[in-house]
Amino acid sequence: MKRLLIMASLLGAAPALADEGMWTYNNFPSSKVKEKYGFAPSQEWLDKVRLSSAKFGGGCSASFVSADGLVMTNHHCARGCIQQLSTAKKDFIANGFYAKTAAEELRCPALEVSQLLEITDVTEQLNTATKGLTGKAYADGLKAEMARLEKDCTTSEQFRCDVVTLYQGGKYNLYKYQRHQDVRLVFAPEHAIAFFGGDPDNFEFPRYDLDVTFLRAYGKDDKPVKAEHFFKWSEHGAKEGEATFISGHPGRTSRGLTVSQLETLRDVSLPKILFRLSEIRGQLTEFQNRGAEQKRISTNNLFGVENAFKANKGKLEQLSDKNFFAQKVAAEQELRTKVNADPKMKAKYGAAWDEIARAQQSYRELRKDYESQENGLSSQLFWTARALVRLADEQGKPDAERLRGYNDANLPQLKVQLMSKAPIYPELETLQLAFAFTKLREELGTEHPFVKKVLGKESPRSLATRLVKGSKLADLKTREQLLAGGKAAIEASKDPMIQLAVLIDPDARAIRKRYEEEVDAVVRKNSELVAQARFDVYGTQIYPDATGTLRLSFGAVKGYVQDGKQVAPFTVMSGTFDHATGEEPLALPKSWLAAQKTLKGTTPMNFVTTNDIIGGNSGSPVINQNAEVVGLVFDGNIQSLGGDYGYDETGNRAVSVHSDALIEALRSVYKADRVLRELRPDAASGKGGSGQ
Amino acid sequence: MKRLLIMASLLGAAPALADEGMWTYNNFPSSKVKEKYGFAPSQEWLDKVRLSSAKFGGGCSASFVSADGLVMTNHHCARGCIQQLSTAKKDFIANGFYAKTAAEELRCPALEVSQLLEITDVTEQLNTATKGLTGKAYADGLKAEMARLEKDCTTSEQFRCDVVTLYQGGKYNLYKYQRHQDVRLVFAPEHAIAFFGGDPDNFEFPRYDLDVTFLRAYGKDDKPVKAEHFFKWSEHGAKEGEATFISGHPGRTSRGLTVSQLETLRDVSLPKILFRLSEIRGQLTEFQNRGAEQKRISTNNLFGVENAFKANKGKLEQLSDKNFFAQKVAAEQELRTKVNADPKMKAKYGAAWDEIARAQQSYRELRKDYESQENGLSSQLFWTARALVRLADEQGKPDAERLRGYNDANLPQLKVQLMSKAPIYPELETLQLAFAFTKLREELGTEHPFVKKVLGKESPRSLATRLVKGSKLADLKTREQLLAGGKAAIEASKDPMIQLAVLIDPDARAIRKRYEEEVDAVVRKNSELVAQARFDVYGTQIYPDATGTLRLSFGAVKGYVQDGKQVAPFTVMSGTFDHATGEEPLALPKSWLAAQKTLKGTTPMNFVTTNDIIGGNSGSPVINQNAEVVGLVFDGNIQSLGGDYGYDETGNRAVSVHSDALIEALRSVYKADRVLRELRPDAASGKGGSGQ
Repeated sequence: MKRLLIMASLLGAAPALADEGMWTYNNFPSSKVKEKYGFAPSQEWLDKVRLSSAKFGGGCSASFVSADGLVMTNHHCARGCIQQLSTAKKDFIANGFYAKTAAEELRCPALEVSQLLEITDVTEQLNTATKGLTGKAYADGLKAEMARLEKDCTTSEQFRCDVVTLYQGGKYNLYKYQRHQDVRLVFAPEHAIAFFGGDPDNFEFPRYDLDVTFLRAYGKDDKPVKAEHFFKWSEHGAKEGEATFISGHPGRTSRGLTVSQLETLRDVSLPKILFRLSEIRGQLTEFQNRGAEQKRISTNNLFGVENAFKANKGKLEQLSDKNFFAQKVAAEQELRTKVNADPKMKAKYGAAWDEIARAQQSYRELRKDYESQENGLSSQLFWTARALVRLADEQGKPDAERLRGYNDANLPQLKVQLMSKAPIYPELETLQLAFAFTKLREELGTEHPFVKKVLGKESPRSLATRLVKGSKLADLKTREQLLAGGKAAIEASKDPMIQLAVLIDPDARAIRKRYEEEVDAVVRKNSELVAQARFDVYGTQIYPDATGTLRLSFGAVKGYVQDGKQVAPFTVMSGTFDHATGEEPLALPKSWLAAQKTLKGTTPMNFVTTNDIIGGNSGSPVINQNAEVVGLVFDGNIQSLGGDYGYDETGNRAVSVHSDALIEALRSVYKADRVLRELRPDAASGKGGSGQ
Repeated sequence: MKRLLIMASLLGAAPALADEGMWTYNNFPSSKVKEKYGFAPSQEWLDKVRLSSAKFGGGCSASFVSADGLVMTNHHCARGCIQQLSTAKKDFIANGFYAKTAAEELRCPALEVSQLLEITDVTEQLNTATKGLTGKAYADGLKAEMARLEKDCTTSEQFRCDVVTLYQGGKYNLYKYQRHQDVRLVFAPEHAIAFFGGDPDNFEFPRYDLDVTFLRAYGKDDKPVKAEHFFKWSEHGAKEGEATFISGHPGRTSRGLTVSQLETLRDVSLPKILFRLSEIRGQLTEFQNRGAEQKRISTNNLFGVENAFKANKGKLEQLSDKNFFAQKVAAEQELRTKVNADPKMKAKYGAAWDEIARAQQSYRELRKDYESQENGLSSQLFWTARALVRLADEQGKPDAERLRGYNDANLPQLKVQLMSKAPIYPELETLQLAFAFTKLREELGTEHPFVKKVLGKESPRSLATRLVKGSKLADLKTREQLLAGGKAAIEASKDPMIQLAVLIDPDARAIRKRYEEEVDAVVRKNSELVAQARFDVYGTQIYPDATGTLRLSFGAVKGYVQDGKQVAPFTVMSGTFDHATGEEPLALPKSWLAAQKTLKGTTPMNFVTTNDIIGGNSGSPVINQNAEVVGLVFDGNIQSLGGDYGYDETGNRAVSVHSDALIEALRSVYKADRVLRELRPDAASGKGGSGQ
């Protein structure tokens, strides 16, 4: 694959014609869009779109699509909830879900949907608070001021406020969200069609997925939220070449990283992640062969692992591309040369790159200990134990001195997570913990004091088994008591998982502290300088790297060329049947097979657009210039995976479910009239909808 | 870890004082050894050592250690045999094995031990045969002449002859081996002590393993082979600083590769291998949790996978080391500059590096198809099916036109492998094939014609299940009939595995042909030129990269510094008990726990030497200047893993079982008098042995 990378904005070259950028709502390049697509989004348009958009759970996007709080996202975003509501007898992942009445809508455990109400620039406040500080003092100062700003903003539990770091610290914005914590499941198709083609088709196009789920936000009054802002449905989707906008929460891009940071990713972090994911993938694949119930409870994890593997592999391939990396090196060299040519800039910014490189060296030296001791034990039960232990410790401290994540502003959400009713599966927990302990020993060696502290004379598997069997943390009451009882309850607890968390917390905190001071603080501070240098040299009409916050991207419906062949921008519903083999992951659900004759095969199924998106944009609405839904983002193509480090319009495409396919499936396959009526009253009564 | 790489010989710098090099027996630097260690091995000494050494099975080394054909190697080298001789009831892997009488010695299925009888330089013959040829003609010419030489040399089934490519084709030698095909198991310790510390301790030091197995070569007369040459046992092992020699079959080093080849390894091949190994590792780990029998039948595979993962990870880390890679680039640049400065050399060699780089590009483009279609289906049953299918096709052709591996010279060994009595486990076969089909689809995509041909409408797992259930190839008779029946029998076969092999063979052969012509032939031819350029510029006192053939390395018993701490060169037997936890892989077998009080704890257990070795050297004897056994190589330390690309005496160490530990264990733990008497008559009767 040839990757001709155009990174005009970041490189400061001539104004790009590319549809590049995940733009913040307070710096959207409307004039640039006008130039290319003849339409300049107004402030009113932008506000409406922002308020109709939503952040979904931990890492997805969504939108409001009816006045009665109906929320649309991807099936793979809502999987956690769907899985948690399922039981061995009622498997909504396999069979889908449809609430025929409002009463049948089921509340998702521990799920939050939120809307971005306000954006305030707080760069000045943070710069003032950290002026002249370095190292630990800088990190503490930044943390304290962030916590203060967030606390002042969080005027009730209805809101959440986050200080958002943009441009690697070149700017800080305070984002205030409206929270919706009562979210109920309304409609989900079967996993088999939501993720038709499975892992082999993931990140590929042509594609035939109905990756959608509808949910509803409820208020404290137990009634559906009245949505002041929501997206209307378009009548016919978008035509080839038509402008499209995607509003969502891209999770993270790394386009502004320095070369030494990219080297760390390429040479250390990404390979490590990929080895770990591959091994977990193998374990889960084989775990699934144990039986139907094991398959059910682990499918969600396996999906996440396979998805992350493919995404990270794409990233590593991008960074291993010699020409691409040379471009990155050249761009950095150009910027540094310009900085060094100006004595004032040189004094201010000149050392930043080397400081970051030194922090990378520190990270490489700390990595094994830090990643093993602070991040290594992935398990729901251990996560719960550690959060309870740390919360008991932290809540007694002044807000400014607490571990990040335990500030007053974070507590409501943390408590919701701790009290989640989501089931915990002992067999899976044991598998995960045994794996984590094995890796711990592998990374640090059998004689490392931390390994000896954790394992003692036990093997990873026997320790994991004993902890999971002995722990009562799966029980909600136990968690409530420990949460309410604070430090005394933690200290008195005989729960082995709590005891493990207590035992290792001093080591974990110590290494975390070193990481925060020697790596994180140095990188933050100097990345800020690099970002400011970029502003000084290239001006401010550039977008910041994605950080999981709301962004708007523009583009158009457009095919592309792959391996010398033209790929058309649309697939049609009948293609879904042609692609099926009858065997997983190419087996269609019964509902689809039954509807094959009646559904309109020429209805567009999936389509691609040039919008610049990244993981986290899943569930984002695709809208036209009337702010009407024309699609639902659920993926990027293979070429989009390198988008973490740069955007290439020749091949990078967002992949979406077509709005007409959603209507046609709800009507012909699922007879989901309640949902249809909310989206398209005309379609519900059979008056068209998927025509074109 | 700092890696200060000394690659003096390859770089042509000043004469190295380092113990670098895996030297061929016909180019051993005796004078260099004399300079450093005061002892110059004579031709007589070298001949004796060569003839006492042995190649063991597919990828290990061994030695003759008694006049009655007693062979010593590692437990992990003989695992295949030990496992194959085990059943669910008699688990020799778990419990060890000791033949108290000659009659109890059990024949290993499909195991061959061979001795290198003669080395003949055939460079001239091959150069003459390929003069002026390029591309396919070159590859064919080379293959034909190799086959001719091997055939002429193989005067009976007792011998095997291989044309060995040295210096990337700079030289070709014909190696003639004496074959021993009746090899019987005499003594093996329990897996728990052979591989004490398991994967976490693998490639680490300090270490406490008794990784040994004794076997015996038998002649056609059903009697033990009378070994004219064998190693005597040393009385006290080797002292710190004493010179040591290691004679064995290092598998493969890549020190002579060009930068473009190293880039392919670093950016493409090694990551791919590691992802695959990680996933298989996860699957096997979880497969083991199904039950005791699953654990038993898969432990061998898991060991191989974990070992390969760690070894390849070390290699990738070495290539990802920026400074190391820069040295490689600089060395190549230096050589090319010198070549280009001389018009004659420039004309002859100047283009070779770019040609190799172009072949790398071809490989990157062919890789997915080639690796998936020709090398992708790892399974014992599929391997058998393909070998039968190809043998039927190939044996009708003139020798020179056959696929490599199917020449007359290869047939005896191939037939032994095909008729192996080693058990085939359907559950494991299904797991492996399902995995292979999944990867095939993942690599090539659901719509690739080859994928459709293989999978049809089936899923990877259902296809694998059907093939394994339906195939009769696990049955020896079936294989015999198919082998005897030739092409007609293959064509008439209804065996689904045979049918699959027949179905895909045209595609596999076609892509293999392209690989051989566009990649392999180009690389071979031009690597030869690079090697010759190196001779011309730096002279011939250099060693060739390892190629799985017999080599001799020199060095000394010597500790090293790791993470700022001095690591002593010896461990002692009592340390084994201190390191134990009672839980796998740190659980000692009962025999050791029972002997704890009686065995002499101060006996040296394992030790390290500076000898330059690599994977394949496992099972090599460590000898002193009297050619007496002082140890048994079983591993390298972590620092040795980068040895694939360069040797660093500061940290790179061979790890061996001490000769005294072997005697002490046989005496105190196993009371294996029959073996003891052969090795050390004095020790058997209790007159010392592990003293020092």
